[in-house]
Amino acid sequence: MEALERTLAAIGPADAGAMARARAHQDRLTKPRGALGELEDVAVRLAGIAGVCPPPLPVPAALAIFAADHGVHAHGVSRWPQEVTAQMVANFVAGGAVANAFAAHAGASVTVVDVGVASDLPESPRLLARKVAYGTADLSRGPAMSAEQALAAVGVGVRVALDLVDAGAACLVAGDMGIANTTASAALICAFTGRDAAEVTGGGAGADAGSLARKIEIVRRGLEVNGVTAPPPAPEGPDRGRREALRRLAAVGGLEHAAITGFVLAAAASRVPVILDGVIAGAAALAAAALAPAAVDHCVAGHRSAEPGHAITLGHLGLRPLVDLELRLGEGTGALLAYPLVGAAVRVMHEVATFDSAGVTGKDGAGRTS
Amino acid sequence: MEALERTLAAIGPADAGAMARARAHQDRLTKPRGALGELEDVAVRLAGIAGVCPPPLPVPAALAIFAADHGVHAHGVSRWPQEVTAQMVANFVAGGAVANAFAAHAGASVTVVDVGVASDLPESPRLLARKVAYGTADLSRGPAMSAEQALAAVGVGVRVALDLVDAGAACLVAGDMGIANTTASAALICAFTGRDAAEVTGGGAGADAGSLARKIEIVRRGLEVNGVTAPPPAPEGPDRGRREALRRLAAVGGLEHAAITGFVLAAAASRVPVILDGVIAGAAALAAAALAPAAVDHCVAGHRSAEPGHAITLGHLGLRPLVDLELRLGEGTGALLAYPLVGAAVRVMHEVATFDSAGVTGKDGAGRTS
Repeated sequence: MEALERTLAAIGPADAGAMARARAHQDRLTKPRGALGELEDVAVRLAGIAGVCPPPLPVPAALAIFAADHGVHAHGVSRWPQEVTAQMVANFVAGGAVANAFAAHAGASVTVVDVGVASDLPESPRLLARKVAYGTADLSRGPAMSAEQALAAVGVGVRVALDLVDAGAACLVAGDMGIANTTASAALICAFTGRDAAEVTGGGAGADAGSLARKIEIVRRGLEVNGVTAPPPAPEGPDRGRREALRRLAAVGGLEHAAITGFVLAAAASRVPVILDGVIAGAAALAAAALAPAAVDHCVAGHRSAEPGHAITLGHLGLRPLVDLELRLGEGTGALLAYPLVGAAVRVMHEVATFDSAGVTGKDGAGRTS
Repeated sequence: MEALERTLAAIGPADAGAMARARAHQDRLTKPRGALGELEDVAVRLAGIAGVCPPPLPVPAALAIFAADHGVHAHGVSRWPQEVTAQMVANFVAGGAVANAFAAHAGASVTVVDVGVASDLPESPRLLARKVAYGTADLSRGPAMSAEQALAAVGVGVRVALDLVDAGAACLVAGDMGIANTTASAALICAFTGRDAAEVTGGGAGADAGSLARKIEIVRRGLEVNGVTAPPPAPEGPDRGRREALRRLAAVGGLEHAAITGFVLAAAASRVPVILDGVIAGAAALAAAALAPAAVDHCVAGHRSAEPGHAITLGHLGLRPLVDLELRLGEGTGALLAYPLVGAAVRVMHEVATFDSAGVTGKDGAGRTS
């Protein structure tokens, strides 16, 4: 808890001064005002994160894929066997997954973290063995994690983020792997937003109508048995709010969710932007926001996944996704697609001429000085 | 006309066999079926263009920015002075524009082409001087271009594309610069889709309510005076259809539109993908599609611009944009943002393991062979 407290204490809001300077600079560049649309907001956000204008280029980027299994899988909420989690970890380590191809294309490193896979994995220099447990317990019968497990998994995510930043990463990318983790994500989203299970639960990586109904029922049961049906009460003090946030994360989350929560918090504490992937990272970011609301200032929503709970999550966080291509894969893939857009937005701040410097006349003939 | 005929004769549809093989390959990769959403369609499209599966990586890319002026500017349809076209060409040549920053970030080369700027431009090794005229005539009083001018400008675009492909470009990116060219684009979109001027005309790079009403009125007048209010008649033969398409392009288009039309046609004839930018490239692609319907098979819609006519254009072409961030800049910027997404989609086809090769169990336990 102490390490987490230190991380939380280091998280501050985006720097309003740097953001104002970034907006003013955007308006001097040789383009119509606002012509870069959402990308102007991204550049301003990154200035706020770094506390400087122009913000540093978010290069290089580092993707961390947190893998874990889920006790709730036993209910048939996914049509994929649980062993696929371990098999996909091997695929990441071997470089054969979509996340590897996207990371290579974007120039991002890939760190694979076993934070809770249900089986023993072969040692590999390309795999961080940080297993907290052999998967979570069944969230529909009681807490998925003990408080200690949740804290330990959060700590794994914090440590991975800090190590990547120490090694030079200027942008973090949050990825996940865990068969059945859209079920735990749906439960987390309900627990942190108060929305109904039927609104946020989707087909995940391939549920049919029958398993979707089962998923919704299981999510409902998990919320009830864990006493997290209502949104978190307004905290009477930060300590109590944090305890309740951790309790909800432990009750219905996954070990990879907890790790990503820590990963996001440590990115925010380090003032390094973190690009969120889809519904799993989004659910984890809800927990991070409950622990430290200012953490959201340091997040960029990479994409909107096809999962219905994801749009609700992004709305709750106040984030607009950069990519919207109906991806539903996880692994960090949607975030990796957004990464070059984030870089391009920042690059504009460094390299584009102003109306003055380029001798370009402004709108209505204003502003030409050469 | 002969050179254009040769280009048109070389354009064939996407290769259905390669596309079918690409779809089948996608389904064997270690990801849930369809989990890459629209990007799976992009990879399939590129296989169809190349006629081979997997398609070659679209690397390197080459952006061509075609710059030209517009007689219709005299009506106050833009709040930017006409001299800004020439000033921005100087900015591109100096490397100071957003297109330069985005191209550098994406690893694309930049070719700047004067196909019709209203003033004499200083010579530069970084500028292709291919001026067909000192801007177009006023489209609201008669044809913007003579048939000869339109054909010459199309030929410029064809030549630039073929030269870039000869130099090794595996992906072409179409960009534009021309103060008032959203007015000509709106007129072209009406002329090729039969839609009303009020539906397709937007604020461009900064029209206010007054100038927007003026733009709509000018577009209407241009359509009427040039006799292109109805959509093009169903051609009685390909020759007549082509002549009418060229007449409409000359009547209300710009020299940069005509050049981009040629650029798209030559990309299609070379079976190299061309990423369209916003409403200007889209309007030019309508002309290309009227000249050779199969040309559309070789286009990728980079983004959807904020201009209302652009969504209509993409719908008419049957293209779905990859990026939708409310950009309204032109220069090829939206297409450059899409380029890494296109590359990532293709890279998946080369590098991602199959369920068999990675020993990953399929959905419902199917397909594991190791």
